[in-house]
Amino acid sequence: MGAGVKPPLRLAIAGLGTVGAGVVRLLQQNGDLLAARGGRRLVVAAVSARDHGRERGIDVTAARWFDDAAAVTANKALMARHGTALALRAEEKGASLAFEAAVAGGIPVIKTLREGLAANTFTRIYGILNGTCNYILTTMRESRRDFASVLAEAQKLGYAEADPGFDIDGIDAAHKLAILSSVAFGSAVDFDGIHVEGIRHISALDIEFAADLGYRIKLLGLARLTERGIEQRVHPCMVPRATPIAHVEGVFNAVVAEGDFAGRVLLQGRGAGAEPTASAVVADLLDIAAERRTPTFAVPASALQKLPASPMLHHEGAYYVRLMVFDRPGVIADITAALRDEQVSLESMIQRGRAPGEAVPVVLTTHITEEAAMRRALDRIAGLDTVLEPPRMIRIEDL
Amino acid sequence: MGAGVKPPLRLAIAGLGTVGAGVVRLLQQNGDLLAARGGRRLVVAAVSARDHGRERGIDVTAARWFDDAAAVTANKALMARHGTALALRAEEKGASLAFEAAVAGGIPVIKTLREGLAANTFTRIYGILNGTCNYILTTMRESRRDFASVLAEAQKLGYAEADPGFDIDGIDAAHKLAILSSVAFGSAVDFDGIHVEGIRHISALDIEFAADLGYRIKLLGLARLTERGIEQRVHPCMVPRATPIAHVEGVFNAVVAEGDFAGRVLLQGRGAGAEPTASAVVADLLDIAAERRTPTFAVPASALQKLPASPMLHHEGAYYVRLMVFDRPGVIADITAALRDEQVSLESMIQRGRAPGEAVPVVLTTHITEEAAMRRALDRIAGLDTVLEPPRMIRIEDL
Repeated sequence: MGAGVKPPLRLAIAGLGTVGAGVVRLLQQNGDLLAARGGRRLVVAAVSARDHGRERGIDVTAARWFDDAAAVTANKALMARHGTALALRAEEKGASLAFEAAVAGGIPVIKTLREGLAANTFTRIYGILNGTCNYILTTMRESRRDFASVLAEAQKLGYAEADPGFDIDGIDAAHKLAILSSVAFGSAVDFDGIHVEGIRHISALDIEFAADLGYRIKLLGLARLTERGIEQRVHPCMVPRATPIAHVEGVFNAVVAEGDFAGRVLLQGRGAGAEPTASAVVADLLDIAAERRTPTFAVPASALQKLPASPMLHHEGAYYVRLMVFDRPGVIADITAALRDEQVSLESMIQRGRAPGEAVPVVLTTHITEEAAMRRALDRIAGLDTVLEPPRMIRIEDL
Repeated sequence: MGAGVKPPLRLAIAGLGTVGAGVVRLLQQNGDLLAARGGRRLVVAAVSARDHGRERGIDVTAARWFDDAAAVTANKALMARHGTALALRAEEKGASLAFEAAVAGGIPVIKTLREGLAANTFTRIYGILNGTCNYILTTMRESRRDFASVLAEAQKLGYAEADPGFDIDGIDAAHKLAILSSVAFGSAVDFDGIHVEGIRHISALDIEFAADLGYRIKLLGLARLTERGIEQRVHPCMVPRATPIAHVEGVFNAVVAEGDFAGRVLLQGRGAGAEPTASAVVADLLDIAAERRTPTFAVPASALQKLPASPMLHHEGAYYVRLMVFDRPGVIADITAALRDEQVSLESMIQRGRAPGEAVPVVLTTHITEEAAMRRALDRIAGLDTVLEPPRMIRIEDL
């Protein structure tokens, strides 16, 4: 394992954007350390990028240059949609397919699930997988401002894209969840089986009520096995303030893995950015340099199970519901009757302030109920004359 | 990498106490999963333990039994005191020396430092490394009770040993820190170079003042490189309540690694117990089964640097000091004069309530100062007539 014994590992880097340039910078800055840890030097032998002359703050003069870089899809989307097929192909060829950077940036979550906690049967995994959403929700809470204003600010600061849908509608988090699920549960990657909701409908009012009820609102990705298959969902959650993940704020990401022996393990760190991403990419390269091999999704790709998606209508949990109602006698009776008719058991109800003849918020929380019943109750409630806006429902998570 | 291709990995287990039996139980319970993930079965071929007949809830009838088990030292103490020599020996023989369970139980912190974050130059590592201390400090805060009463309760509940010194005096945390430092900084293991203080002197009063000042008191192990060598210290710390580690409560452990590319990564989980320990041990076995090799302390043992211990007297930080003083005019002037004479800059002072002619607590916090100056100032203050008890000093950490 001595440094310098093995020949250098020669790398070709496709693309010198933020991530590619970050990787090259890391390789240069920590080169001696990497050689000591990986048992050999990592050398950039070739790069491909369009603009040869652009200043990137890195030295790639020793590398062979290709102008005609193949367009490369962001690898989390690729893995989330075609991961099983890619893993099968890689294993046939005896090649490593490494993707630590695809989930939670600088946090080595793939290695932790695949190796560090590999002795465990996982009972559940969940996490804050999108820094943009977490930044927006954190800022909304801290500044008591509404979604649109905070999103605009996040776009100005570069924390959100000009076209923000990929992040705020939960797609990015779902890509990452699809990968995590497969690694944790040995299931074939199933992006299409994920129930996805984003954070567009979260209002300052909901965040305030959450605080009153002892929760924080987080966009989580959650996965577990049920008797019906694999349940994968991405949506805003009411998270009890006493749980560690409630305190993961701003652009940070976190993943919680629940194992039958390790118990609950939480990992937290930076989910994006050139440096954390480069850290993850180069950790993968060190595994390759040291010839440490692990099956792509923890078990051989041929052993990945095609599990049915556990239908969201069968999900069981508690619910937060906010209604805007016309403040007049009998409103609450109509609402509670709708819940009763669908066997939804009410846990608490808050009507803050009174404003006879005007619209006021009413907040309900339920005991554990089946999603299907909850949705039927919400349909009934939405149909009441006195309910002035579509009901807002946020699932309460037992973490 | 297909399961069943390689012959089983045959294991000999020395000792069937809590950990040994936990490992056997895990191997039996998750056997098929481990075979899929490790590429071969893990089989217990031999065990050694004194009492053959004892009921342990596991089946070891297929294993060869040895009654004359060699006494085995708890491996964290062994690694903390003789780690470098053991690593050299293992590498000469081409053997793996695995010790994930030695630090922070079920949290895969060794793998994270050695592999997951291996691309980083670490700037600092720190953590809550002893669950007993964290349980005691958490319970003191929540119940507003004093150290002795909470310790007695912890002993009754099995969270503290009958002879608690190993935990509460910081020795156990220091063993773990010595191992973490070596892995993170490529330094020869140096347990004797660690500055160690325990939690015996933490009072309910200090915990209350900490809350008033926006801190929580945690026993941390911290290590970083300084221009003078390696600074390793274990002692109670004032931790800002806004940092994630302040919220790691009860018997949980946590480790924070700060890397130049990954930034700050926090790992949190169970630090002790049969199941989390078995999770860590079997993860090591899976690495061996899959032939994944990493140098014991991240770089080859022959490359570990003998770094001098950075003297604690040169440590620079802010300080919390609690004094019990005789409440009469001029007391504060004498104390502040002592600080001035040693060039210690006062940040805040609290004297809660007044009780002329009686003992009252006075709490000071300082700006960044050198430990040597702080200690000289404390000696002066301790010598004042009006200061009735030895001053209590707790370092304030900038995390």
